[in-house]
Amino acid sequence: MNTKSSFLEDPHGTQEEILHATYRALCEHGYADLTIQHIGEKFDKSVSLLYQHYDGKDELLLEFLSSMLEEFEESIPAPPADDPAAHLEAILDGALSHEISTKRQEFEAEMVELRAQATYDDRYREQFTRHDQFFQERLLEVIQAGIEDGTFRNVDPERVVKFMFTSIEGARMLRATSDRSDANVKAVRTELDAYLDAMLYATE
Amino acid sequence: MNTKSSFLEDPHGTQEEILHATYRALCEHGYADLTIQHIGEKFDKSVSLLYQHYDGKDELLLEFLSSMLEEFEESIPAPPADDPAAHLEAILDGALSHEISTKRQEFEAEMVELRAQATYDDRYREQFTRHDQFFQERLLEVIQAGIEDGTFRNVDPERVVKFMFTSIEGARMLRATSDRSDANVKAVRTELDAYLDAMLYATE
Repeated sequence: MNTKSSFLEDPHGTQEEILHATYRALCEHGYADLTIQHIGEKFDKSVSLLYQHYDGKDELLLEFLSSMLEEFEESIPAPPADDPAAHLEAILDGALSHEISTKRQEFEAEMVELRAQATYDDRYREQFTRHDQFFQERLLEVIQAGIEDGTFRNVDPERVVKFMFTSIEGARMLRATSDRSDANVKAVRTELDAYLDAMLYATE
Repeated sequence: MNTKSSFLEDPHGTQEEILHATYRALCEHGYADLTIQHIGEKFDKSVSLLYQHYDGKDELLLEFLSSMLEEFEESIPAPPADDPAAHLEAILDGALSHEISTKRQEFEAEMVELRAQATYDDRYREQFTRHDQFFQERLLEVIQAGIEDGTFRNVDPERVVKFMFTSIEGARMLRATSDRSDANVKAVRTELDAYLDAMLYATE
């Protein structure tokens, strides 16, 4: 994951410092128990500054989600498109890497917690729907480029993308919520590769 | 999903009525905003009864999770084992059915919300780890039976199961949190079938 000049690692300016404090507080307390007070405890400046920037916890958390998704989207390799097979591999390497750092574990766990809010809050669901489309569009470009240049077979690109994306998201969610092992991530990578070899890569 | 004589549909006795009220309150307010007061509002009897049965919200929600998981596990077809291919199909039909009822949508959404608590609460993680193992064991029995009787190839059954399970869980999570459409569920079913045809089913 690209973490250079990220608000998660090295916040610049009050706004990023607030988002960084929100991240630390969320990691420690979880979404359900989070209060502005908790965020204030992780913030080096006056809590009143939080209220100058945000109307309240709701608005702050939505802005935080938006920044998290942006951060995540920047880490998805953008298409150079001259080598679809290598590009697809780079995306899968990034999305399904195992033995990840504690920081990335925290990041993935926060994404799961925020995503759960989308079950009943339309504002979260809109953001995740847009984000999921972004990731799937990125995959779609690669598959379509590979079909055009003959690297890949003439599959239904949208369906293949939805399947890949769903497996990736499932693997991340299980790593964050089940036994925290990489077992499902590794299995998904191996079997997804086998599936792609069988269904996607043109033979001969 | 098997919902006959379920506390979700037709609660019997105080304990099930409390769990039913918890379910209704969770659907309406979401986990983060849920209070004992909200549960009390969905409960036909005195709120003091809640405290006679449970020490507080925490204990009640853990008991509720346990009942939800049990409910879910009862809906997974148990092995008759004489026809592994038909049995596997029955499990996939149940897990990846589309055009589901509003009630099942609610149920799946609650599972996602409760699962998110496992990102930071060990008690939730223990329950989901056990549940995930249960579902994967059920799939494993089918795959192993099919390998033994020659229906399936000699694949790595654990890895195939982890891949199937992860895709299923991912599909459910996306349905509950992304645009609420069945698009990913349908794509997973079709591509999982293609994967199983290519990798699992013995040809000759």
